[in-house]
Amino acid sequence: MAPLPSTLPRTYSRITLRERPKAAINPSLDGKTGTFTLETGVPMFGDDELKPGEVIVQVDWISVDPAMRGWLNPTRSYVPPVAIGATMRAAGVGRVVRLAEGDKGELAVGDWVVGTLNWTQYAKVPVKEVQKIQVDSTISPTLYLGALGMTGQTAYWGLHDVAQIQPGDTVVVTGAAGAVGSIACQLAKLHGCRVVAIAGGEAKCKWLKDELLPEDQHVVLDYKSADFKKNFRDVGYVDKVFENVGGEILDLILTRLNKYARIALCGAIADYQSAQPKGLQMYLTLISQSATIQGFIVFNYSQKYHVAAEEMAKHIRSGALKVRETRTEGIDQCVNALVGLFSGANTGKSLVKIGDEGAPKL
Amino acid sequence: MAPLPSTLPRTYSRITLRERPKAAINPSLDGKTGTFTLETGVPMFGDDELKPGEVIVQVDWISVDPAMRGWLNPTRSYVPPVAIGATMRAAGVGRVVRLAEGDKGELAVGDWVVGTLNWTQYAKVPVKEVQKIQVDSTISPTLYLGALGMTGQTAYWGLHDVAQIQPGDTVVVTGAAGAVGSIACQLAKLHGCRVVAIAGGEAKCKWLKDELLPEDQHVVLDYKSADFKKNFRDVGYVDKVFENVGGEILDLILTRLNKYARIALCGAIADYQSAQPKGLQMYLTLISQSATIQGFIVFNYSQKYHVAAEEMAKHIRSGALKVRETRTEGIDQCVNALVGLFSGANTGKSLVKIGDEGAPKL
Repeated sequence: MAPLPSTLPRTYSRITLRERPKAAINPSLDGKTGTFTLETGVPMFGDDELKPGEVIVQVDWISVDPAMRGWLNPTRSYVPPVAIGATMRAAGVGRVVRLAEGDKGELAVGDWVVGTLNWTQYAKVPVKEVQKIQVDSTISPTLYLGALGMTGQTAYWGLHDVAQIQPGDTVVVTGAAGAVGSIACQLAKLHGCRVVAIAGGEAKCKWLKDELLPEDQHVVLDYKSADFKKNFRDVGYVDKVFENVGGEILDLILTRLNKYARIALCGAIADYQSAQPKGLQMYLTLISQSATIQGFIVFNYSQKYHVAAEEMAKHIRSGALKVRETRTEGIDQCVNALVGLFSGANTGKSLVKIGDEGAPKL
Repeated sequence: MAPLPSTLPRTYSRITLRERPKAAINPSLDGKTGTFTLETGVPMFGDDELKPGEVIVQVDWISVDPAMRGWLNPTRSYVPPVAIGATMRAAGVGRVVRLAEGDKGELAVGDWVVGTLNWTQYAKVPVKEVQKIQVDSTISPTLYLGALGMTGQTAYWGLHDVAQIQPGDTVVVTGAAGAVGSIACQLAKLHGCRVVAIAGGEAKCKWLKDELLPEDQHVVLDYKSADFKKNFRDVGYVDKVFENVGGEILDLILTRLNKYARIALCGAIADYQSAQPKGLQMYLTLISQSATIQGFIVFNYSQKYHVAAEEMAKHIRSGALKVRETRTEGIDQCVNALVGLFSGANTGKSLVKIGDEGAPKL
């Protein structure tokens, strides 16, 4: 890890929202045509700007998540949309580099923290809005954006509270090679379920089968394969679904539900960028099978995060839970990493290294 | 009521399924082009055909329900599809006219029964598959097909177990002037909810407002009105939904859910006859509002029917629950009555009078 700067640079870079995309994100950063603008040479926060209870954090890694696409839409949701001109919202980890004058709070310079740090090299944030994290030889800071952070919480609560998985269930996980999906596959397996993992492309499917789900009873299916629909039908009927994709795959799943099936609707990446989603045509099977689709967001479980965090840490330390990351470097790569989620470019957790050393070469 | 025949006629009429409709039902009964065939002159069951435990029932009224459309499709469902050539499945009430030789069972000639009697003037059924009913001056036999039968059970369990209505909730009921919907409106009101009833056409809406929901807090909306969407938005966000219609109205409702909203998906009459339903495009709001769509069928609650039956009978006797029926007469009117459900021809429970006096004039 790079040493912390003893003095802060006079300027830093950040990425702000330029205009709301109607469908797909335009990745240009030229400030004229793209969805976002890369702002360089932003003056560093002055010491006099730092109010009591605030800190400056040097952002080290930011998390790239499908939900971020939804934050760009001017529609009612579980969080307000990102304002035009505002720094793009993102979870991140970093180190505290400045405390407010005279502050003897919970944090010290050099502490690692996780929180909503946004697409910026330096963030000024209230101490109450970040959480101190412990980093050691087996627990890297990026795990707090993945398995030990919102990603792991999402998989855990989606399976246990929303889908209500039980040992012996056949559990479908879509977007199975993604950050949340790959953890959901493993948690369902560890809970005694039979897992049907759906992902796109041979490489992702090979990784899922070889590394995460090698046991015979689990099935990995490539939705890009010509035989996908037939192969999915051969799996038989399904009890629980952890759904990240939506669209046509969800429609297919709807035709293969057992009675009282439960679908935990975590995401629908196939439809996040559609100006006009195709829609669920097969929803009538919800009636005939007395089945449920339940949407959820991880923040619903904030009072119970410690329950999942303990279980996830145990599995990480024991090696029962495997984590994969797709890493890119440089704040200017944030937009490409986000766009890459929708083209299926990532396997596992998508992360961008920020930090001083990741500053754009302009 | 007509007296029971002392001797049975030598023949009777019934309606059988001729071919499965791909979309809308073809109402012709000519036996060549329609979905169904009217069979007249069918020889009466012989006494030697009656096994111990079977009875012959003269069918008096049959129930016409949207779910019957689903029974025509060759798809996996909660009951097998009606076979080609078989008498069309339908709930009915009638009177026992013959017992098996030497049977001293639970039923006597003249008893009123309810059960799956089908589109026929005479039904031969096992005693175990019908239920004896009590008919008196305030409880007509047709009530056992409506408020005191599956219709009332459906409204009760959909509201209480699936939607989980609570006093103070804003509860949307679609298909509100229909058999199940009109009871659901009243049960939600009696439970202390604010009801938003959606129906098609001025006459139905006037009936709902004047007779069932006259209190100020309840809202009745005509989906055929030009201002419907605006008027629905003016209602504000909604907590619970009793959904009978599906299609575009459900899509609109999906945009107006409160957090943790619950949609009890009872039916989707707008899409039952679609070869290719338009589909739910707005399902992503289930995520942002942590909302649930749960399908159900009334048979899930068969072990608890007595709970709802007691409450429904109490409300009927007290006058708190108002019932309306759309009645037609003659077995040859069964198909038209079924088709009428999809064009919105009925208000309240749709019933066809069968009986000898309803025999077709051919």
